[in-house]
Amino acid sequence: MRVLGIYETVLYASDTALAAGFYSDALGLPLLEEADELSAVLGLDDGGVLLIFNPELSSAPGRRVPSHGAEGAGHVAFSIEEGALDAFAEELGSRGIEIEREIKWKPGARSLYFRDPAGNSVELVEGELWR
Amino acid sequence: MRVLGIYETVLYASDTALAAGFYSDALGLPLLEEADELSAVLGLDDGGVLLIFNPELSSAPGRRVPSHGAEGAGHVAFSIEEGALDAFAEELGSRGIEIEREIKWKPGARSLYFRDPAGNSVELVEGELWR
Repeated sequence: MRVLGIYETVLYASDTALAAGFYSDALGLPLLEEADELSAVLGLDDGGVLLIFNPELSSAPGRRVPSHGAEGAGHVAFSIEEGALDAFAEELGSRGIEIEREIKWKPGARSLYFRDPAGNSVELVEGELWR
Repeated sequence: MRVLGIYETVLYASDTALAAGFYSDALGLPLLEEADELSAVLGLDDGGVLLIFNPELSSAPGRRVPSHGAEGAGHVAFSIEEGALDAFAEELGSRGIEIEREIKWKPGARSLYFRDPAGNSVELVEGELWR
């Protein structure tokens, strides 16, 4: 009786299509379900999904699933291939996406931070930070 | 240059210790960093982490990392071992945790929903929902 991992991670954006396009274009995540007013679904290679919800609609009562919806900047971190952080930084720069911060945590572990169109804090991580 | 998966998933709770204790006790997630006023860190078997932040503190400017913090119910879904959903339902019930909903999506794919102490919507998923 074991939890295997996190299957769905959620971020909120009032413009779901704009946010989903950002993750699809800038990070190459495939859209598993195109954005509608309520939500969009992006896939990760490890089997997980990133869900984007419009909090005004997802927090409404009476949906088939329990309601949820938050206001304010959320945060997500993606793990990337070893050695790919500089290439990502260049790619983000070429798309006009500002790198808000870069942190070297320890040898072999670095993070880049930027914002999605809804203001959520997005991090790309190379290496292991927590273990 | 590839994104491998989601490394950090964030939920917000004003009482980080209470929320972290819930995920540790009810779902068996190990605490990688004990709760302080700002945050707590729980580990998943697949290498990912669940971060719990007090949004009042994590949204403050001037931190080493970019600020973020949301108010309102968030959502997370965990994947569990095949066949373990009923055992989890029983375990949650024995802890007095109310199952808010159960959904059978299709043969072999089911979800249980409940709330963490901060009101976030937590889902346990058996099977594949999105692919």
